[in-house]
Amino acid sequence: MISDEAPAGGVPLAGFGSFYAGGRQVRIEGQPISRIQFTPTVDFDWDPNGLFHIEQAYVQWFVPARRRHALPIVLLHGGGFTGAMWEATPDGRPGWLQEFLGQGYAVYVVDNVERGRAGWCPFPSLWPGPPILRSAEEAWSLFRIGAPQDFAARRPFDPQRFPVAAFDEMIRGAVPRFPRQTDDAAVRALGEVLARIGRPVALLAHSQGGEIALRTALAAPERIAALVQVESSGFPPAGAAVAFPVLQVIGDHLDATPLWVDLAARYRGFAADLAAQGTRNDVWFLAERGVRGNSHMPMMDDNSAGIAGEIGAWLRTP
Amino acid sequence: MISDEAPAGGVPLAGFGSFYAGGRQVRIEGQPISRIQFTPTVDFDWDPNGLFHIEQAYVQWFVPARRRHALPIVLLHGGGFTGAMWEATPDGRPGWLQEFLGQGYAVYVVDNVERGRAGWCPFPSLWPGPPILRSAEEAWSLFRIGAPQDFAARRPFDPQRFPVAAFDEMIRGAVPRFPRQTDDAAVRALGEVLARIGRPVALLAHSQGGEIALRTALAAPERIAALVQVESSGFPPAGAAVAFPVLQVIGDHLDATPLWVDLAARYRGFAADLAAQGTRNDVWFLAERGVRGNSHMPMMDDNSAGIAGEIGAWLRTP
Repeated sequence: MISDEAPAGGVPLAGFGSFYAGGRQVRIEGQPISRIQFTPTVDFDWDPNGLFHIEQAYVQWFVPARRRHALPIVLLHGGGFTGAMWEATPDGRPGWLQEFLGQGYAVYVVDNVERGRAGWCPFPSLWPGPPILRSAEEAWSLFRIGAPQDFAARRPFDPQRFPVAAFDEMIRGAVPRFPRQTDDAAVRALGEVLARIGRPVALLAHSQGGEIALRTALAAPERIAALVQVESSGFPPAGAAVAFPVLQVIGDHLDATPLWVDLAARYRGFAADLAAQGTRNDVWFLAERGVRGNSHMPMMDDNSAGIAGEIGAWLRTP
Repeated sequence: MISDEAPAGGVPLAGFGSFYAGGRQVRIEGQPISRIQFTPTVDFDWDPNGLFHIEQAYVQWFVPARRRHALPIVLLHGGGFTGAMWEATPDGRPGWLQEFLGQGYAVYVVDNVERGRAGWCPFPSLWPGPPILRSAEEAWSLFRIGAPQDFAARRPFDPQRFPVAAFDEMIRGAVPRFPRQTDDAAVRALGEVLARIGRPVALLAHSQGGEIALRTALAAPERIAALVQVESSGFPPAGAAVAFPVLQVIGDHLDATPLWVDLAARYRGFAADLAAQGTRNDVWFLAERGVRGNSHMPMMDDNSAGIAGEIGAWLRTP
């Protein structure tokens, strides 16, 4: 053992690993060959035709050295992000991946179709595009950090728990997306991830990931011990039976835009539907619980560790 | 502690974490606003203009519970792959990340510009494209698994150490690339990664990553304790002084294509240049050392653990 331990930090692990799941093989035919210079030393006739594997998901799993709970947690990012969003907050505190490991859970982190290490499909015949990338201004407004006109000064809503000084660090984690075009593939791939895990999980999804998670869970409820929807944009079809417990977690400043006023009403409607079904559910409007100032990104806000602790406690409540 | 430890495997860790490094902010202006349906529940006027952060690198670091060497190892993927290529072999054995952790090294795994969690830039005004994705057929031939006409039958060269039955699993890890267009940005970002690490490292790069690694190392030799070029396509400009030890590792079947005949000659030329400078260097043509059948992917071949062991021993040889 050496004493110079830089880098340092993070939770001790019994082990970690990764796998790909799902996707499909496709064949491209009839496209012209072109001369491409790959590197200063390598150029050749590049043939774009052939066999490709697209629409897989990538998963990294981590088992803490002090594992205390049998239930694994699966973390699914929102639109325009990758699994890296769970690893650290923009201001360098531990992310929810580290928090849940520290609580004693094994955690699976997904890069779903089109995002991160899952890769993406550059063939317009299969994914027509165009892909879009979220601007800092859009994130500022959509994530309820502050009013649009206050972006330039980075002046946030008051109170605001997002680490605003690190706002520009967060947008480094933004990646392109193909809105709605890849949703069905993402649902299929997440289903394959859960099948590969092979035992019921707590599925925790953020934002647009909540839509993918909910569709996947409704298609295979036997794989879901609980669904945690954090600032989700996904809701079940009217009348759908939901056979697993659901926790919804929602931050503050929901009157910021008409979109969020609408979503807030939907969260309440979803909770009422679940209650009417007799399905265990809780909806945490954090501001109504006395916790003011959370943004759309509670896993990055200054009380992120506390919220992860409450979610863990909820998962352990029979 | 619970006994049900699935998933299981991997090396125990003292900790792990991640960070982004490098890149730049860009401003997009004058593009038209369009109505986009993001999810079934969310649609709004999407404004593609604004501030974006592009060309960053993403890095995951891992410290083994039993760390025995102060020198950190930085792993840089080749073209069309991400850092996931180091985590596991296509047939599910431990990857070189796990091997080097098991040897007692702290390891940094890079997703460089355009790849994996680093994200990519969808604006043709900045990255003109078109992006390309490697086909299974191209990988089969370029990686010296077998002759092109033997792809359909998946009949490899004899001997062949690549796990051919898992060939189709490997191509799940392929991601799009923008040939040469992102090279300068990749060199800048890798330089920022090394600056962030802040102490000399062993930089181990594969294939096109060897070109990025060599350029980065020549620009900041004080950050490089050793450079390991595995099946690299990168060589220094004529007459460049190389101030750090270099190990080149090259597999078998180099007579498969004119490209590899040419690269084999360049490996020898590079070694001769280093020797003439008095720079410590070794070049391992594995077949000439009696190890037949390695492909372009020695970190995935059936003797991957043994080669990682030899590289580790080389790093520890003064």
